Amino acid sequence: MQKVKNIQFKNVDIEGGFWKQRYDLNRFVSIDSVYNRFEDTGRNDALRFNYEKGKSKPLHIYYDSDVAKWIEAVSYLIEKNGGYEKEQAEIDKMVDAMAEHQLDNGYLNSYYIQVEPDKIFTDRTCHELYCAGHLAEAAIAYDRATGKHKFLEIVEKYMDCIEKTFIKDRSARFSTPGHEELEIALIKLYDYTGNKKYLDMAMFFIDTRGTLEEQEYEFAEHNYAQSAVPVRDLDMAEGHAVRAVYLYIAMSEAAIKTGDKNLLNACERLFNNIVNKRMYVTGGIGSAKLGETFTVDYDLPNLEAYSESCAAIGLSLFALSMQQSGLNAAYADVIEKIMYNNMLSSTSLDGKAFFYENPLEFHLASVDKETSVKPQFRSHLPIRHRLEVFACSCCPPNVNRIFARIGDFFFSEYGDSLVINQYGAVSLKNEKINLRMKTDYPINGKVKFTLKDNKYSKVILRKPSWCDQFTVDGAKYQLKGEYIQVEPNMEFSVDFKMKPYFIQANPMVRADNGKVALMYGPTVYCLERIDNPYELNALSVRLKTKFKKIKNPNYLLPDLETVGFSDEAFDSLYRKANNDKNPVKLHFCPYWTFANREECDMIIWIRKL
Amino acid sequence: MQKVKNIQFKNVDIEGGFWKQRYDLNRFVSIDSVYNRFEDTGRNDALRFNYEKGKSKPLHIYYDSDVAKWIEAVSYLIEKNGGYEKEQAEIDKMVDAMAEHQLDNGYLNSYYIQVEPDKIFTDRTCHELYCAGHLAEAAIAYDRATGKHKFLEIVEKYMDCIEKTFIKDRSARFSTPGHEELEIALIKLYDYTGNKKYLDMAMFFIDTRGTLEEQEYEFAEHNYAQSAVPVRDLDMAEGHAVRAVYLYIAMSEAAIKTGDKNLLNACERLFNNIVNKRMYVTGGIGSAKLGETFTVDYDLPNLEAYSESCAAIGLSLFALSMQQSGLNAAYADVIEKIMYNNMLSSTSLDGKAFFYENPLEFHLASVDKETSVKPQFRSHLPIRHRLEVFACSCCPPNVNRIFARIGDFFFSEYGDSLVINQYGAVSLKNEKINLRMKTDYPINGKVKFTLKDNKYSKVILRKPSWCDQFTVDGAKYQLKGEYIQVEPNMEFSVDFKMKPYFIQANPMVRADNGKVALMYGPTVYCLERIDNPYELNALSVRLKTKFKKIKNPNYLLPDLETVGFSDEAFDSLYRKANNDKNPVKLHFCPYWTFANREECDMIIWIRKL
Repeated sequence: MQKVKNIQFKNVDIEGGFWKQRYDLNRFVSIDSVYNRFEDTGRNDALRFNYEKGKSKPLHIYYDSDVAKWIEAVSYLIEKNGGYEKEQAEIDKMVDAMAEHQLDNGYLNSYYIQVEPDKIFTDRTCHELYCAGHLAEAAIAYDRATGKHKFLEIVEKYMDCIEKTFIKDRSARFSTPGHEELEIALIKLYDYTGNKKYLDMAMFFIDTRGTLEEQEYEFAEHNYAQSAVPVRDLDMAEGHAVRAVYLYIAMSEAAIKTGDKNLLNACERLFNNIVNKRMYVTGGIGSAKLGETFTVDYDLPNLEAYSESCAAIGLSLFALSMQQSGLNAAYADVIEKIMYNNMLSSTSLDGKAFFYENPLEFHLASVDKETSVKPQFRSHLPIRHRLEVFACSCCPPNVNRIFARIGDFFFSEYGDSLVINQYGAVSLKNEKINLRMKTDYPINGKVKFTLKDNKYSKVILRKPSWCDQFTVDGAKYQLKGEYIQVEPNMEFSVDFKMKPYFIQANPMVRADNGKVALMYGPTVYCLERIDNPYELNALSVRLKTKFKKIKNPNYLLPDLETVGFSDEAFDSLYRKANNDKNPVKLHFCPYWTFANREECDMIIWIRKL
Repeated sequence: MQKVKNIQFKNVDIEGGFWKQRYDLNRFVSIDSVYNRFEDTGRNDALRFNYEKGKSKPLHIYYDSDVAKWIEAVSYLIEKNGGYEKEQAEIDKMVDAMAEHQLDNGYLNSYYIQVEPDKIFTDRTCHELYCAGHLAEAAIAYDRATGKHKFLEIVEKYMDCIEKTFIKDRSARFSTPGHEELEIALIKLYDYTGNKKYLDMAMFFIDTRGTLEEQEYEFAEHNYAQSAVPVRDLDMAEGHAVRAVYLYIAMSEAAIKTGDKNLLNACERLFNNIVNKRMYVTGGIGSAKLGETFTVDYDLPNLEAYSESCAAIGLSLFALSMQQSGLNAAYADVIEKIMYNNMLSSTSLDGKAFFYENPLEFHLASVDKETSVKPQFRSHLPIRHRLEVFACSCCPPNVNRIFARIGDFFFSEYGDSLVINQYGAVSLKNEKINLRMKTDYPINGKVKFTLKDNKYSKVILRKPSWCDQFTVDGAKYQLKGEYIQVEPNMEFSVDFKMKPYFIQANPMVRADNGKVALMYGPTVYCLERIDNPYELNALSVRLKTKFKKIKNPNYLLPDLETVGFSDEAFDSLYRKANNDKNPVKLHFCPYWTFANREECDMIIWIRKL
């Protein structure tokens, strides 16, 4: 069933432009920032197995996964760029500690071994298999990057333990992971080692899920952890958004590897449900803070949006996996939406701090509005500035690893064609081609392709869904659906005509009725009050309006200025309605750059006149 | 400081039209409905003192207040219309039981005497003084209506106990009522008995409030029960909305009686804060379910609106009291807003069922939207149909007593002038005048006045704030501010030109930006989906539009029809914005008639094109 083969970052060079800047910010700043805060908070100590009760900082059940994701990210950077000797030394020490403390039966979890050894595999909500999955993903990446096998050997021993406990003996108190992730790792283990046992284990956990009565959090229904029905019967994205998309990634990978059509159909239904009914314009998903969950179709509130960084990252990887199922631009389109919006907004401009929730609106006056109940009982709104670390700090190392593998998103093979999924100043060098894109994308839509040693019969360019008009120079081409099939010459160029435009949401989206969002290419724009000293919700705009591009010294994309209107202020609470309004200058900035100055109101969706 | 004297319902006859229908619905249906459900739920048994542990239905700390409010309502109806012999017999039996079970020191609370006698006056959050206040209000009303003094004597003995415990000995575990109400009752006791002790007691509780560290609910800040600062320093309506307005009523009554200018200033600030920044268009107040509280200025969400019936009733009584401080139409204007909207919406068309919360919007798709957390953890939205009784059933008997005294709102005296505050087919007969209004108000704005035996030098008509145009026939008049001063003839008439119009909210109200509400005279209109089979939030309307009046067989006011627009439906979640929309017929009904058919979406605020 694998019709498209994604080309992995190993052969992809981020050479310049927008993505080079972004890649290096992660490589040289974010990686260190996350490591340092993990050091401060005792997280790295988890895998050093140096916990002393009463002396050490408290350990948490998910610390292994935090550190593992950081190791995975560093491994990707080592694989691509070498270096990181100091970090490698630290990781090697952790690997030694893991080897030393791994139980005889192969069990490996820093929290349970050091803090609650009598509770191993007794509580489904306690992330043991989730941590196991992240350790495995880290071990694979580290093995591939460094050729050092010790970490992977440890992990394989742990997988034997899991196989015995959960599949052979069924001796654990639960049957499937309370937080999916292990399934993804098992399929990667199968890919990396060729050992079919790992695919079988993955299929066991995928197939068992939703077929048994399992423990959930006290507040949760079974659909919270996607355990209410067998996975092939799923047709709506429900429950904890990160858990959900992590499951869907594994389902998609498994379906494509095994040719399981029912499983792939479920993945398609779930993908379509998300993209057509449950996704913010930024690519964010999971609208409710309550349980960090998906809610119902078209429920996309802006002020209360949860939109966790990990969830959008997960959705991008789900789409990347689904991209292998056939030539369907919808997948790369969603990836583009996430890459240029929710994924970027997750990190501060200086690369050091991160959003867990990615707000769709700030309205300072609504913060802590229940003034007569104690703060801990007030309604939750997202924080208004990024932090370097969180109590539950899953997102920062997830950001580390997604930017470290950003090269994975650009190219795939379809038969004897090369597919260009994303655009950037990026090159691909493998046994079939030496291709270079020269572009300022997403600052404009011009991309110049230079090809050497090409053995592909066609180069298939995805036409971004935002693009109404394009030109191709220097090659014959045909537009087929959302793809431009090019007869490759040594040089050709495409120009996806890029200008500011407004989009609207489906009328079923209550939060956005009568409103529009400004876009420029794939980039969502927003209004911050620091640039627009008005009540932002009292602003409006006409669809036909002219924009001026304003260079901002802090990032490559232009800010955009136009004329809008502000509702006339008055003193009373209500008055007879009129159409009075005042013209005002509106200054939009790229959404992902928001909240990098002082705390202030922000909106994406502005009223349309 | 009393410049205006409100004329009480005793001399006011509700003769016909809109208010006769409404008055009789309460008199002949709602009173019975509340009594019967109070009987079913064991509430009436509270004051029968027949509780047997393990056998009786459980008693609750606030049952005395529920029954007392019902007795007060019946007493008003007896005072005005006589009758209710069966109810009087029931009440007399309760009075005998109260006399029998009242403690020697005068203490009287059915819950504490029968269930937790060792906890008397130990917990400020347990409504003892609130219940005491309602018993006192009921006793005064019953005494005045029937001339039977036993109930009042019991209450006076209880007040002695409260005076000794809280003022002389200070032996209770708290100093001021956790829920205000007693203060109102004490001032009424002073008015009714002439005993200044009661005014002094009221002033003690008013003056002490906010000056001492007092117990609050675990979730609450001190401003929840208006206990954070001395009452004269209050300048924002904060905390539990019913508690707040009950305090303000007492403050206003006290200020006017004692000439306490600082206290009156505080009342004016609080009234203005509510009316200019914290009141729904229906007259509802207290926007948050969380603590049933006021939040911050301009925070008036529609979908989540709390807007408790008791709170709006309290605000109407606060305004009625403030009306005595001077000739200021703002007070009667707010009363009118409440009378024709939140007060009416509290009750079903059949008179039997009630809203506790008065929703400003229904959106069925948002109900229980957190599908993957258990129902008890999901976000709260108001119920979508009225109930005959609630677990905490304060609102239904409050509805009973406000409609039983609706005659209080129409007339007041200002020097040697008669002020007409509200309009209706109502007559006033006292030693100074025999006045009759003939009108279909609020179906139209024509009011014909017939005067006999008039000794007032002027009749001052309040010009409703919604009225831009009016004519006076048959008398000389002068418009002074918001009042029309008429040289009274035996017959004259006024026509407040009434036609449908749209209002808008202050641009600071985030929930209503870009929207308008349809009004007809004082009546707010709404759209119910049962009449308008569209996504209601996808509808819009132009300000300049023509309306057709449609007679509805279920109520006197007309429904209103016009042409509006529905946003064009499409399949995807987002698309390039356009202005496409389809013209649709919009059928508006009076807000207070909503939710009397099947459960369906409802909006008041509709987008303005």
